[in-house]
Amino acid sequence: MNKTTIKEIKKVKLNKPILIEGLPGIGLVGKLVADLMIDELKGERIADIYSDYFPHQVIMRKSGIIKDTKNEFYLVKRKQGDLLILVGNIQTLTSESQYEVNREIIKYFKKNKGQLIITLGGYGTGNPIEQPKIFGAATDKNVIDTYSKFGIEFGKTRGAIIGAAGLLLSLGRIEKLPGLCIMGETHGGYVDANAAKKMIEILSKMLDIKLSTKKLDKKVSENKKLLEKLREQMEKQPISGGEDLNLSYIR
Amino acid sequence: MNKTTIKEIKKVKLNKPILIEGLPGIGLVGKLVADLMIDELKGERIADIYSDYFPHQVIMRKSGIIKDTKNEFYLVKRKQGDLLILVGNIQTLTSESQYEVNREIIKYFKKNKGQLIITLGGYGTGNPIEQPKIFGAATDKNVIDTYSKFGIEFGKTRGAIIGAAGLLLSLGRIEKLPGLCIMGETHGGYVDANAAKKMIEILSKMLDIKLSTKKLDKKVSENKKLLEKLREQMEKQPISGGEDLNLSYIR
Amino acid sequence: MNKTTIKEIKKVKLNKPILIEGLPGIGLVGKLVADLMIDELKGERIADIYSDYFPHQVIMRKSGIIKDTKNEFYLVKRKQGDLLILVGNIQTLTSESQYEVNREIIKYFKKNKGQLIITLGGYGTGNPIEQPKIFGAATDKNVIDTYSKFGIEFGKTRGAIIGAAGLLLSLGRIEKLPGLCIMGETHGGYVDANAAKKMIEILSKMLDIKLSTKKLDKKVSENKKLLEKLREQMEKQPISGGEDLNLSYIR
Amino acid sequence: MNKTTIKEIKKVKLNKPILIEGLPGIGLVGKLVADLMIDELKGERIADIYSDYFPHQVIMRKSGIIKDTKNEFYLVKRKQGDLLILVGNIQTLTSESQYEVNREIIKYFKKNKGQLIITLGGYGTGNPIEQPKIFGAATDKNVIDTYSKFGIEFGKTRGAIIGAAGLLLSLGRIEKLPGLCIMGETHGGYVDANAAKKMIEILSKMLDIKLSTKKLDKKVSENKKLLEKLREQMEKQPISGGEDLNLSYIR
Repeated sequence: MNKTTIKEIKKVKLNKPILIEGLPGIGLVGKLVADLMIDELKGERIADIYSDYFPHQVIMRKSGIIKDTKNEFYLVKRKQGDLLILVGNIQTLTSESQYEVNREIIKYFKKNKGQLIITLGGYGTGNPIEQPKIFGAATDKNVIDTYSKFGIEFGKTRGAIIGAAGLLLSLGRIEKLPGLCIMGETHGGYVDANAAKKMIEILSKMLDIKLSTKKLDKKVSENKKLLEKLREQMEKQPISGGEDLNLSYIR
Repeated sequence: MNKTTIKEIKKVKLNKPILIEGLPGIGLVGKLVADLMIDELKGERIADIYSDYFPHQVIMRKSGIIKDTKNEFYLVKRKQGDLLILVGNIQTLTSESQYEVNREIIKYFKKNKGQLIITLGGYGTGNPIEQPKIFGAATDKNVIDTYSKFGIEFGKTRGAIIGAAGLLLSLGRIEKLPGLCIMGETHGGYVDANAAKKMIEILSKMLDIKLSTKKLDKKVSENKKLLEKLREQMEKQPISGGEDLNLSYIR
Repeated sequence: MNKTTIKEIKKVKLNKPILIEGLPGIGLVGKLVADLMIDELKGERIADIYSDYFPHQVIMRKSGIIKDTKNEFYLVKRKQGDLLILVGNIQTLTSESQYEVNREIIKYFKKNKGQLIITLGGYGTGNPIEQPKIFGAATDKNVIDTYSKFGIEFGKTRGAIIGAAGLLLSLGRIEKLPGLCIMGETHGGYVDANAAKKMIEILSKMLDIKLSTKKLDKKVSENKKLLEKLREQMEKQPISGGEDLNLSYIR
Repeated sequence: MNKTTIKEIKKVKLNKPILIEGLPGIGLVGKLVADLMIDELKGERIADIYSDYFPHQVIMRKSGIIKDTKNEFYLVKRKQGDLLILVGNIQTLTSESQYEVNREIIKYFKKNKGQLIITLGGYGTGNPIEQPKIFGAATDKNVIDTYSKFGIEFGKTRGAIIGAAGLLLSLGRIEKLPGLCIMGETHGGYVDANAAKKMIEILSKMLDIKLSTKKLDKKVSENKKLLEKLREQMEKQPISGGEDLNLSYIR
């Protein structure tokens, strides 16, 4: 029995949508970017994802009215293809539930004539980074050929892409949906507005949209201070081991 | 396959029932209140909830006869609408099982022409409190408008309502059932009869019932002593950090 | 989908069987007793229980041939009613799986015209005990009335009966099967042949069978030495708290 | 609902295949052997195993293209019976999922007229070993009689065979498929190319194939150095207990 449901709030006919996933992950880079996109492009909430695998709780709001635990799809209508932005405060924790939730997302996207999947994430290096690179991993060579020109570096990263950012690509590919994961290089131990800003620059070019990053700027300058602190600490600290030094244990 | 079953002990036709949930939670505030209501209003057990997600054990009783692990519904017949009180010694632990059990409860309540869901809980502050407030969170604005006049403060709390107290509201709302969670302000680290007493006062007005709190009074005075001890300790203790001071780690 | 199967090795018509459960539990009292019964009464293996919830492994044997992970039913034919003895090296660990496995056992027993369920266990007290009592807990008053005369003390124990020993009674009662759990008083921290011996005396009377306990005697004398050691330790040890003293933390 | 799928990449008619399982296990002995067999015998990938119980992630590759999380079947065509080699980087972790995945493998193998199951593993002793023995455990006596002549020692090992190496035999036997587990004696605390080499010698005779172990030789000499270090350490270390000494805790 399936324990995950996508409930449509509004019936809309989508125009060749691109899925953009920005659920919580390393450095919250993807979430910062997706939330800003919805805000700046005035995305409209069109569907909710409910799952029995999400935490068994509701959120209390200032209004006194409870908020369900869920993920949400926002729509940005565009002539050259809609943007369908997936956001939320949570991902499920187990393999079984991750597969189920992401498979439902793919089903919903496929049904709506989806064209391309872009998942957003952070690539944690454990090092404080001022000029973050934007890395990529794709479902096939065509995607790499099309998008590497925008400044995304493919094939430079190692290891695994965990959660929705990885699984949506894998499950999408089975359904012949091309996709790529864009990762902002980040320390991994704090919310990284700087990596998010860099990612927005590249996404803007890729998707041919205009996005002000003003709302991120305050956070970016806070990040800068945090970064300087981290570096100072690392200089003072007697070197006891490479791993400790670059704080990679935070991830 | 569903692993949760509600077994009716007695076929009764319910009269526009209000569901009152008092399963174990923070400070056991809800449980104290619900148990007292059943006791004072002579509630009759009409149904049991069995679930394969409850602990795999039975309880030994003085009579030598075993007691099943379950939750129970008690009925209080009233002209102006019945009270259906949900109690027990346990809640399940995982998301998946919480969703299943609470969905079954909503189904059963809906089938019995349920009108309103009131869940009872504690709002843990980590501070010893003598004059506890009663906070609320609701499924919609109508509910707030109707019940705030009884002294329930809506919109003053933050964070999540975990377990049945939250999920019954969320799953009920999907079925168009209005509801609210009433939370007694409490320390969170001990059973709080004082918060329970305050909650009973407000519930009595809300539901237009008379409830003696005599049986709680002994516990209340015990609570008072505990409270004084806690305060003394906090005064003596050299301040090492706000978090430690208000004992919020107990929750 | 059900992940537990009972496979019959041999089609036998059972004669009003009594189920005797002796799976691993506190002090292994039940297991010692059940294994001895099979041995002494020349029980024949008639069915195996397989479950996907048992450990995912096979056992290596001296013969070089692997043994499956399973529980087993042994049959002792008797004019006055057969004995169906349930043994094995494992119980499953989660609530969900315990309910499933024990429900399958009840189904199988019911189908075979089962009359009574006797589950065997230990009641851990944390104290070294030389003259163990045999405690009981039953599904209803009739059972208590019938069996208390054999020296089983009902209603003297508190807490929960965990696993098959408890759940078989609870799930059996739903199917109108009477049952009782017999618990040998035991320390709880070691395999207790002494409690097993006492339990066999009582079971022999209850079931009108003859059982030599010779094979347990060596273990009983080993137990005695262990017991003396424990007592010495406890006398030497400066008393720091009741709980520590009676070693109840071992359970 | 089944959460495991075997996807055929290529429809091939198999000729009386022998299944050879080399998934990760103790000392990675089985994996080293199976990977080498595929390499040396030019095995062709014919099917993939996907499971919702595998980690919810994808692997990043140098090409920039993601790799799914899965297990794989490779085929080596032979007149005297094909070899179907099962490899991968992971096994699932829970009983339930192990049973499901291995049952799917047996189903697939049965459908393809499978004749024999050979699972490869390590038998961890906690001792550094230079001349490893090859142990065996089988589904029945026929298998022992047929294969003991190749230098496999049956009935010399104790304990459990965990995971696919054990479960494939157990689940295969239910379907009348004979099988054996071949275990290279190994320390258990490191990747053991030496045990793998010995296992290949024996497998070559058993299966009448020729396998160069050249590619393992570098690893074997690295192993030798590691072994010497371990022995030195053990000599220096004051003896504090047998268990510590032979490092069996590493397993």
